[in-house]
Amino acid sequence: MSEGSVSLVGAGPGTSDYLTLGAVKALQSAQAVLYDALVDDGVLAFAPQRCVKICVGKRGGRLSVSQDKTNALMVRLAHKGLNVVRLKGGDPSVFGRVEEERQYLDAYGVAHRTIAGVTTASAAAAQFAFPLTHRASARSVHYLTGRTKDGLPDLDGKGLEGAETTLVFYMAAQKAQAIETALLALGRRGSTPVLILENVGRTHPAMRRCSLSTLASTVRETVYEGPVLICIGDVCAFARAHQTGQMQETFSVADDAALCQGAARLA
Amino acid sequence: MSEGSVSLVGAGPGTSDYLTLGAVKALQSAQAVLYDALVDDGVLAFAPQRCVKICVGKRGGRLSVSQDKTNALMVRLAHKGLNVVRLKGGDPSVFGRVEEERQYLDAYGVAHRTIAGVTTASAAAAQFAFPLTHRASARSVHYLTGRTKDGLPDLDGKGLEGAETTLVFYMAAQKAQAIETALLALGRRGSTPVLILENVGRTHPAMRRCSLSTLASTVRETVYEGPVLICIGDVCAFARAHQTGQMQETFSVADDAALCQGAARLA
Repeated sequence: MSEGSVSLVGAGPGTSDYLTLGAVKALQSAQAVLYDALVDDGVLAFAPQRCVKICVGKRGGRLSVSQDKTNALMVRLAHKGLNVVRLKGGDPSVFGRVEEERQYLDAYGVAHRTIAGVTTASAAAAQFAFPLTHRASARSVHYLTGRTKDGLPDLDGKGLEGAETTLVFYMAAQKAQAIETALLALGRRGSTPVLILENVGRTHPAMRRCSLSTLASTVRETVYEGPVLICIGDVCAFARAHQTGQMQETFSVADDAALCQGAARLA
Repeated sequence: MSEGSVSLVGAGPGTSDYLTLGAVKALQSAQAVLYDALVDDGVLAFAPQRCVKICVGKRGGRLSVSQDKTNALMVRLAHKGLNVVRLKGGDPSVFGRVEEERQYLDAYGVAHRTIAGVTTASAAAAQFAFPLTHRASARSVHYLTGRTKDGLPDLDGKGLEGAETTLVFYMAAQKAQAIETALLALGRRGSTPVLILENVGRTHPAMRRCSLSTLASTVRETVYEGPVLICIGDVCAFARAHQTGQMQETFSVADDAALCQGAARLA
């Protein structure tokens, strides 16, 4: 019997539009899929029908299956000779615990590979049309999380005060007050534009604008049911409302030979 | 005649395995594609054959077509009623100048949308199996560039000294000495692990390991022909050699009904 293996695959943040062709190929040859709770049904649909699909979903810090059990299940399925796909939301290398799973697989001699995904920050920037970096106003971008191992947001003051760095906080809605307080104390302007983005890449995305000084109060106004991303920095001022309807129609124009030939003449 | 539009699309860093399904759909309905020099032929192949494809490639700071001309060409093609795809390497929102192009399109009343791509840092972390964040040793990740508008790397000292932040420098090979000097001066350990990654996501990827104190000398040892990414932080110690051959065989195991049923029984 052939040896099993595990592909640690990034699903992107939402619908299958964010899935890469590499991820599609991995799913199509999967014999078992262990997936996070937030992975979209349309993504799972790329796995063969008769393939076993197990939700080991993490969401909002609640584990439906413990990390230890997920690790053990990956090894058990691979040792049965199966092609296992461990399907994670977003990009496995950004706040995805992928190294912990790889080390477990290494310890049990299970071959593995990792397939990158679109991280939520990139999807958010595309969906709401703002850049994460900008030559004039944001030379760099820094991804942080509201949910670290010890439960504290990563706000030790290092590197968070520079107006030329865009800050993106993953899983941070519950830490909005701590983020606001810490960044104001570090000297970030209270008027710094902020975006609170819910359900990025999913079917009902929502954007709320505020400024750093009104971040916590704005977060408190709403009950969030989906995952929340908080973006802070001057680039947030560029954000455009999520475009549907008219835009979708514009982009569904059928291919047309005459127009295409027109383009060829321009080249 | 229908109105034209522009899709600003991230192609990912290399082969079509990094292309998202959303990007594939945009390419398939494109009537004109304006692409960067580093975009892979396999990616371009998803556009219809009779569609005009124009290289407006930027590479290493040399512009084969100026940004102004690219902007003007996008508008001209869209005003002809075409579905234009502006295809960019990596993710358009990370060091991609996407906002400058959107503002130009807005000014000329051209409808646009942006489609996220896998950024090179995510692809690098997957390809060489190291995480960008890690609960124990890297609470956050910060993307910077060696090539800013004024030609200086972004090394103003803010946020670069924290050992718990992974730093990823895009397009930074020529600034290795400046990066090493600045980070050592800020108190980053000389023994901090560093990865110099060339051709991430492309056909001949290469990884060189060094430490912060040997970064500049290691970069000088090699002539780089492809794009270079420099990763700095404790997570770099986890990197595994690029896996091919045996791994590829392991992952090409054909689907097998008996194995799949075995997995179903485990669930």
